[in-house]
Amino acid sequence: MPIPPMPKIETIISPAVFELYKINIENKNVVIIDILRATSTIVWALHCGANHIKPVNNPEQALLWQAKGYLAAAERNGTTVPGFDLGNSPFEYKADVIEGQNIALTTTNGTVACLAAQNAQNVIIGSFLNIQSTVNYIKQSQLDTLLFCAGWKGKFNLEDTLFAGALATLVGFDTECDATMAAKDLWQMAQNNIAAYLTKASHVQRFTRLGNQNDLDFCTQLNLCNIVPLFKNGIIE
Amino acid sequence: MPIPPMPKIETIISPAVFELYKINIENKNVVIIDILRATSTIVWALHCGANHIKPVNNPEQALLWQAKGYLAAAERNGTTVPGFDLGNSPFEYKADVIEGQNIALTTTNGTVACLAAQNAQNVIIGSFLNIQSTVNYIKQSQLDTLLFCAGWKGKFNLEDTLFAGALATLVGFDTECDATMAAKDLWQMAQNNIAAYLTKASHVQRFTRLGNQNDLDFCTQLNLCNIVPLFKNGIIE
Repeated sequence: MPIPPMPKIETIISPAVFELYKINIENKNVVIIDILRATSTIVWALHCGANHIKPVNNPEQALLWQAKGYLAAAERNGTTVPGFDLGNSPFEYKADVIEGQNIALTTTNGTVACLAAQNAQNVIIGSFLNIQSTVNYIKQSQLDTLLFCAGWKGKFNLEDTLFAGALATLVGFDTECDATMAAKDLWQMAQNNIAAYLTKASHVQRFTRLGNQNDLDFCTQLNLCNIVPLFKNGIIE
Repeated sequence: MPIPPMPKIETIISPAVFELYKINIENKNVVIIDILRATSTIVWALHCGANHIKPVNNPEQALLWQAKGYLAAAERNGTTVPGFDLGNSPFEYKADVIEGQNIALTTTNGTVACLAAQNAQNVIIGSFLNIQSTVNYIKQSQLDTLLFCAGWKGKFNLEDTLFAGALATLVGFDTECDATMAAKDLWQMAQNNIAAYLTKASHVQRFTRLGNQNDLDFCTQLNLCNIVPLFKNGIIE
């Protein structure tokens, strides 16, 4: 019996290049990556007992879901939109607030990537918090996999690319994708102290100015959560 | 007298994200980077005595200029378009062929980037062959600078990003740009043996299949040429 070919892995370094990778997406895994903070926060919220998360395009839509009993969560430019139940920091998603709740969430980058990739075979929410579970899921699927970095307003960002490099390294699939090779090399440089490496990143600098520096330490912890949230039929659970 | 702020440097990792960086471009330097091979070949052709190079969008336009006395050069998917005077390998641009000649050139990625950036204050043709001259020019200008990687069909590529990292490191301007930080880190890993580092790159693999492997060694040589070609009024000279 011939050995089946190893699945391939590619990295989409920002939503601005997503169109170039859409071919055959219905047969692929797509991992949504928005380390600071949407995908880390989604993983943490589900780990802490939220029922499901509904990514939506804008704050207005989140408020429509609020009227139907959801908690409404909205972040723009790194801060919570005034008047909403929650923002985008994992520290806000405490069990006593969110347990058993549905949450409608809109963020600057992460939820946009989720919605763009919704036709993929599996849309996986990835973060350092659940990296090993995500790796196991991808290896078991044996499907070609796209690592979709949410970036910052369409631009490349360091923390999402670094996570893509970590994931590609651990999954071990073949790659002919230069962005994946670069990401793996960055991971090789950073893996012994992720938070220290990321201190220079533009979004971390933005965080520090906004007083969110604890989020960096939180979101770069490995394997706090043993779950693989999937986005399917409009909800993440 | 107050010290003027250090100019800033940013990296455009592919033409697909160029739109995000166009603000105020008329006051900036843009360095066009297509290491394998358009910008390396342009620098080499001018060094070897070509009069000027006219980047054009497609082979048909190159042929129109051929009818006016230009040499017509066209590359698509890594190979010379049949029937043209020249392709995109520096080895074809010998002094006895090109000295005193004007050349109309179209390539898969590099000439597209040139034309997209034409409204910048200075559009500079960068390559490892003329890296130090390019660094000196940028430092002397004291202008904000965009490093425009031509990439491969809109996607990130390793060799252009690596050159951006080398240039940013040598120029030393401030950066808050994550793509520039990543590029500088890749350069740190690769600088002691550029060609060996790039052997894994997708375009180098494509080259090897097409029999162009000598071009990699040629295009990763430092400072063979002491010129800074500029694209202005439709021509590079």
